Amino acid sequence: MITAASNTRIKEVSRLIAQPKARREQGRFVAEGVKMFLEAPEDQLCEVYVSDLFLDRCRNDSGFLTEEVRAACEEKLLQCGYETVADGVMRKISDTQTPQGVICVLSQPAYTLSVFFRKPNPLLLLLEDIQDPGNLGTMLRTAEGAGADGVLMSKGTADMYNPKTIRSTMGSVYRMPFLYTEDLTDIMGMLQSKGIRISAAHLQGAVSYDRVSYLEGCAILIGNEGRGLKEGTVKMADRTVMIPMAGQVESLNAAVASAVLLYEAARQRRA
Amino acid sequence: MITAASNTRIKEVSRLIAQPKARREQGRFVAEGVKMFLEAPEDQLCEVYVSDLFLDRCRNDSGFLTEEVRAACEEKLLQCGYETVADGVMRKISDTQTPQGVICVLSQPAYTLSVFFRKPNPLLLLLEDIQDPGNLGTMLRTAEGAGADGVLMSKGTADMYNPKTIRSTMGSVYRMPFLYTEDLTDIMGMLQSKGIRISAAHLQGAVSYDRVSYLEGCAILIGNEGRGLKEGTVKMADRTVMIPMAGQVESLNAAVASAVLLYEAARQRRA
Repeated sequence: MITAASNTRIKEVSRLIAQPKARREQGRFVAEGVKMFLEAPEDQLCEVYVSDLFLDRCRNDSGFLTEEVRAACEEKLLQCGYETVADGVMRKISDTQTPQGVICVLSQPAYTLSVFFRKPNPLLLLLEDIQDPGNLGTMLRTAEGAGADGVLMSKGTADMYNPKTIRSTMGSVYRMPFLYTEDLTDIMGMLQSKGIRISAAHLQGAVSYDRVSYLEGCAILIGNEGRGLKEGTVKMADRTVMIPMAGQVESLNAAVASAVLLYEAARQRRA
Repeated sequence: MITAASNTRIKEVSRLIAQPKARREQGRFVAEGVKMFLEAPEDQLCEVYVSDLFLDRCRNDSGFLTEEVRAACEEKLLQCGYETVADGVMRKISDTQTPQGVICVLSQPAYTLSVFFRKPNPLLLLLEDIQDPGNLGTMLRTAEGAGADGVLMSKGTADMYNPKTIRSTMGSVYRMPFLYTEDLTDIMGMLQSKGIRISAAHLQGAVSYDRVSYLEGCAILIGNEGRGLKEGTVKMADRTVMIPMAGQVESLNAAVASAVLLYEAARQRRA
């Protein structure tokens, strides 16, 4: 059992949690909690750290976990192997206030553009400079729920491997293809050449979002929380759509706006 | 100019920011930032504190604020009166990492149930035990955007006057009626007696959310982020609706789920 936060491996985990640079250099990231552990793809799972308290809860029915979750944790720990860490150390490295007692180190998936075109008429989400890690994670989660094929982001968008982002994806980070691009407008041109129509969410959009069709290949483009989309990016889009706003509120939260558009596309595609 | 954080009035502001109990007892709350100051209803505004730096930026075109915002701030400060605070003190009391330099103390609005029925066929949002302050604020903001008439909450729901909640309402806290209820099911019965149909968002909902009508008076019921709705609350609802989920993601973020339902109602009501 690791009993000191100064342990070399523990220090490495802490670095991966705190430093985007360390994550980039090593091509790895950290996911915390029972759900993220259970859903972690085994081929990405590099290391698993459990607190002695959590291990005890996995082995004995203590009432802290449902029997189903307990048994699944016990089995996955046996299968994947793990390192036990003293509770105090777990609390120190955890990014949450009440750590659940399990932390995984995973290798970052590497998606190529072709993944976004596995199905005919893909539904994509394009993000320009989204800043809030929680918003970004929520967007990936919503995109999976709405049946999108992937998320493409400007390089100015928040880090998908930020612990807050990872948490708010609720596991979608393991399943939804995503890709950072050097130049979002370049990618937009490429998408258009493949017949994808790009709808930019815009407060002064030409038409209400629910008056256009999302049945063919399409991408929904969402801009930064404060500044919205850059002018050049809006110009590249095939159309601008607005979400009708009642009352005096100026705009919706960026993750909420993505959800409204993605679920309208999903609704049309189901109908 | 107030130069010490130990100043009695400043200590009172800090208490209002940090302590739900102080807010409850005094019936007041604190809102921070330029947008929240400019949108603050004058009849609720009790005190305004500005940093000397912010005051300078309001008086002189320094390029930090757009001319429109600068002029509006200058005018409102003159109209409402203010107290200047040293920058260091502002940084100490601010709930944000980069304070904008203006903090308001406001009286809490007191809504009665009749406000929710000002229009025929109201659209209401019912929340049971929403925990995340950011989610709650986002829900109020989205409800305003979708044209809802108000938000009714169980007493176990997060505090609307939490600084994080206030921030994420983006001003909707000044405009959207909201009410905490001792017993949510009591209120549901009352709503039903007035002809309001209650649709509970549920992972195992009987029907897809977009297959029901929201044209008549209706309420959308959303449960806690982790646990969902209590069984007794679901039973009281007129119908359960589910949001179709692609992929393997279990559920949507609670604020996102509210948005999908509220905007479907808004879409039907516009059509």
